[in-house]
Amino acid sequence: MSAIPEDFVTTTARLSDEVTRPFPASTKQYVTGSRPDIRVPMREIAQTPTPIGNGEGAEENPPIFIYDTSGPYTDPNLSIDLLRGLPDVRSAWIEARADTELLDGPTSDFGRRRQHEPALAHLRFEHLRTPRRAKPGHNVSQMHYARRGEITPEMEYVAIRENMRLDELRADPRYEKLLRQQRGQSFGAGLPETITAEFVRDEVARGRAIIPANINHPELEPMIIGRNFRVKINTNIGNSATTSSIEEEVEKMVWSARWGGDTLMDLSTGKNIHETREWILRNAPMPIGTVPIYQALEKVDGKAEELTWEMFRDTLVEQAEQGVDYFTIHAGVLLRYIPLTADRVTGIVSRGGSILAKWCLAHHQENFLYTHFDEICEIMRAYDVSFSLGDGLRPGSIADANDRAQFAELETLGELTQFAWEQDVQVMIEGPGHVPLQMIEENVTKELTDCFEAPFYTLGPLITDIAPAYDHITSGIGAANIGWYGTAMLCYVTPKEHLGLPNKQDVRDGIVTYKIAAHGADLAKGLPGAQIRDNALSKARFEFRWEDQFNLSLDPDRAREFHDQTLPHDSHKVAHFCSMCGPHFCSMKITQDVRDYAKARQLEDAEQALEVGMQEKAEEFVRDGARIYKEV
Amino acid sequence: MSAIPEDFVTTTARLSDEVTRPFPASTKQYVTGSRPDIRVPMREIAQTPTPIGNGEGAEENPPIFIYDTSGPYTDPNLSIDLLRGLPDVRSAWIEARADTELLDGPTSDFGRRRQHEPALAHLRFEHLRTPRRAKPGHNVSQMHYARRGEITPEMEYVAIRENMRLDELRADPRYEKLLRQQRGQSFGAGLPETITAEFVRDEVARGRAIIPANINHPELEPMIIGRNFRVKINTNIGNSATTSSIEEEVEKMVWSARWGGDTLMDLSTGKNIHETREWILRNAPMPIGTVPIYQALEKVDGKAEELTWEMFRDTLVEQAEQGVDYFTIHAGVLLRYIPLTADRVTGIVSRGGSILAKWCLAHHQENFLYTHFDEICEIMRAYDVSFSLGDGLRPGSIADANDRAQFAELETLGELTQFAWEQDVQVMIEGPGHVPLQMIEENVTKELTDCFEAPFYTLGPLITDIAPAYDHITSGIGAANIGWYGTAMLCYVTPKEHLGLPNKQDVRDGIVTYKIAAHGADLAKGLPGAQIRDNALSKARFEFRWEDQFNLSLDPDRAREFHDQTLPHDSHKVAHFCSMCGPHFCSMKITQDVRDYAKARQLEDAEQALEVGMQEKAEEFVRDGARIYKEV
Repeated sequence: MSAIPEDFVTTTARLSDEVTRPFPASTKQYVTGSRPDIRVPMREIAQTPTPIGNGEGAEENPPIFIYDTSGPYTDPNLSIDLLRGLPDVRSAWIEARADTELLDGPTSDFGRRRQHEPALAHLRFEHLRTPRRAKPGHNVSQMHYARRGEITPEMEYVAIRENMRLDELRADPRYEKLLRQQRGQSFGAGLPETITAEFVRDEVARGRAIIPANINHPELEPMIIGRNFRVKINTNIGNSATTSSIEEEVEKMVWSARWGGDTLMDLSTGKNIHETREWILRNAPMPIGTVPIYQALEKVDGKAEELTWEMFRDTLVEQAEQGVDYFTIHAGVLLRYIPLTADRVTGIVSRGGSILAKWCLAHHQENFLYTHFDEICEIMRAYDVSFSLGDGLRPGSIADANDRAQFAELETLGELTQFAWEQDVQVMIEGPGHVPLQMIEENVTKELTDCFEAPFYTLGPLITDIAPAYDHITSGIGAANIGWYGTAMLCYVTPKEHLGLPNKQDVRDGIVTYKIAAHGADLAKGLPGAQIRDNALSKARFEFRWEDQFNLSLDPDRAREFHDQTLPHDSHKVAHFCSMCGPHFCSMKITQDVRDYAKARQLEDAEQALEVGMQEKAEEFVRDGARIYKEV
Repeated sequence: MSAIPEDFVTTTARLSDEVTRPFPASTKQYVTGSRPDIRVPMREIAQTPTPIGNGEGAEENPPIFIYDTSGPYTDPNLSIDLLRGLPDVRSAWIEARADTELLDGPTSDFGRRRQHEPALAHLRFEHLRTPRRAKPGHNVSQMHYARRGEITPEMEYVAIRENMRLDELRADPRYEKLLRQQRGQSFGAGLPETITAEFVRDEVARGRAIIPANINHPELEPMIIGRNFRVKINTNIGNSATTSSIEEEVEKMVWSARWGGDTLMDLSTGKNIHETREWILRNAPMPIGTVPIYQALEKVDGKAEELTWEMFRDTLVEQAEQGVDYFTIHAGVLLRYIPLTADRVTGIVSRGGSILAKWCLAHHQENFLYTHFDEICEIMRAYDVSFSLGDGLRPGSIADANDRAQFAELETLGELTQFAWEQDVQVMIEGPGHVPLQMIEENVTKELTDCFEAPFYTLGPLITDIAPAYDHITSGIGAANIGWYGTAMLCYVTPKEHLGLPNKQDVRDGIVTYKIAAHGADLAKGLPGAQIRDNALSKARFEFRWEDQFNLSLDPDRAREFHDQTLPHDSHKVAHFCSMCGPHFCSMKITQDVRDYAKARQLEDAEQALEVGMQEKAEEFVRDGARIYKEV
């Protein structure tokens, strides 16, 4: 029986139709791995055929497969119950490893208190999972297994997911032209032709990729972050002291998954952080990250100087037992680096960085996250929480980019990376921030060197400071470039950055912008198969298959809506012209004449074409009425 | 007495308030040159002071000067009368050169016909200017004067405009910190510390920059396009067969000027092209470009094969005598290049390119723009119309980027550039299109080599094809990069690209995106003074001067609107926290503590800071209540 009052249940348990509606012409497919419970989701987009000649035949356009982050929400065969949470994906895998134990309940003081606090009953997630922890002396990180040579189901899952049926497509002649791809420039990344589970294992073992997957988050659909895989994007949600509520955050999480968010950080700073997080985790198909210092600060009523290692430790355990997959830990904000920020234009702009700086100043002591880093590692490996080593001293303006404070911290993060790797704990490294175009590459080069190719995870960077309300764009430019140079995951920025909290529309704008940046980086690096979707959409565009063009796009709804603003009639979607040029001016169709001509003559090269056929073609062209448009 | 009926006059003559309203905290300033009629507009943005300590004093924040494209429309001291057109800026300069003559009226057949066609009376611009032409044997191009060693008022004007009072700011101690700038990477551009009129003359003489300024467009506020100057952006407007009207196009032109469009192309393809163009030119402070083949095609009812050199020539004269400042001429679409496009995914996507390709195929003859190029040059130099040599074979998908067809045409454009330069005719070169990130630099390198550094003017490029409805962003990423590498002007793309015709909101989104790209490129190249606005805005942000932050931004209205969605009260605009973090979490304020401390101790370096003062600081910090927020 639910202890949750009806009004909260109805608002929280009901997702709006727009976040769960399947994408047009799309079906959810699952590719099964070596065991039946490895079922990797993909989105298959059907295409219409290309009419040939006078409608006497048609050329098939094969379906296109898309990396699918949307989770069970877009599977019409599953019924979603937010009150119960998502189906369990990983528990059997975790149990089979026999290196964990179920606990009696939360072991953190705070977790226990919240579980029994009657005042919270009305917003507590009902079907709490029993937390699990590594057995004493065991390490349950994916890195640990990888280094022992074990390919886990998680690794196989991500291999299938990254590979996106590429081997099958290569064997299928319908995809031959779609597979053509421009040569990439990878800046030293090692992108294999095919992603194997063994390749995944090897990359995780050497620390060049991570699979964030807390044993207490079995609902997770595993994914990988590393420079030799698809570039990923992270989105942020979270209520603050001034706005938002649990149900809005859950809806935003599902919304984020829909548009392509690969991971999600819950940056809540307001009330009921613990309860909000539980709702999110139990319903999240993607890895969830947090910045535990935010909650720790709430526990001391915002007084940074009252933070202690003991209560911070309790917070880590509390969140690890809920299932948080990665923690941002600002352990590189060392006391001696703080004065390096004094001459900056914008000082310290990381919230976590400023909290730690305040603590250090108040105590005249070294950052307790640094001095207790070994104990933090112990917790991380007991639940397989990955480090996201925070850049507390990142620049907040291009004037402050790549300065000594920033790079000093980065060097310390490299030292901490080595320490964590000695404990087989997974690590990624956070990066800036605000960096002008010409200084972006240095960030990646330095990160790869100082942090030994641990996955780089950057916010933007924004390439200029003068465009508040458009910072998804100022940062999307920087993100595409930094992704190209070797960053593994891009943290999105919404149009509201610097101005306010994003609403759903802002989240969508931010995510699509970052999907563009990440995909642009994949193309630039030469990721095998990355160009298939571009090729298919361009072919559809050239052939005036408007519906296919919409369906293949990152945001089919908006593409259709924009088209319909100028040409709202359905008949226009199959018309042989579009609104930009009108019927006489269309530039796409003329090429078909050129192509038909070249094809008909089976000419081997352009010179030959001119010699043997141009005159003949000219006569025929005029004789046929010199029309480039045919009746629909 | 106006022959224009009242209903047309009222809709056409009245601009909406939103396109003419002065920007907040901004005043129009004019910098006077060596003669009183050289008055160069700039926008001055006032800033509020920074409070110091307990409100006992204040630090002045000096005004920031912005390159101003908005024309007389934002000058409250001028009254705008669209029926009469803008004030005359250049006629005295042109007359003083004594190398032109006033004609009796239009010399083109078409121009004469339209002037006397009664059916057009209701939409004809009333105060037609008497057209002017070079006296026989004279060349009136800015390049011609430059090569003779003459510094024209136009050259001096653009020097003042580009320089933006930089020398004065350097001599003013209030700007010392604001002038600090990151070192650029210019890829071989030669950016001087100060732009002089002689530098402008030299750049124009060698063809590395152009000043598009038809002698029949005296309303023009001169500007320059070249890799050693600020990166510029072009916007497109134009009605089509299916939508739009004259008054909408005029309003869009003013709207484009407001948000920062440096030049504007009128790409109308529908009815009344001639009359629409007249209204635009007489009211346009920026250079206007056209693609004359569009109108020529309209004259033959859309039948490309019926185009002739004679009627095309008449169209050039018609438009040159109206005052068009640059013509897109697709003279590089050679017959032998057309079959090179047969295997492309998206064939020929340039409208002009496809029209010429169709003509070539129909006649089995070489492109008449190429064979008559010498005669075109004669017209160009008689009015000082600049070439924008069109890329008719630009790629329409990333699959087709940098292919033989594209580069073969580019090589021909280089040949034509040399020919035009021999006639002292100004030239810029159009570029793609759709190009993945890693292939962008090659475009610039090849253009600089093959076209001898003639200014490159590119559309985007889009770095991926999968995001219709977001192509301002896919292309803005490419634009920032190609601008950084050396492109002189970026042709904007709106969210409606590939889908429909842009409305005002789309135009604004497209322009601001391209202002970001162009400014990002300026910063990346290291253009002197480029970082002032970033530094000022970042300082305002750090000091919670919200109003200054809005006023300094590219789009003050939207920045304010977004802020107010979360924190709508006026008091929040001076609050010492913002909506993202709430009062306890603000990361900006902690830095002030660090800075105050460092300043108070006058410490020379960070180590010293720690040695002598950290303990003291810690005690004081706690003693004062460890508060980082003070009452407003």
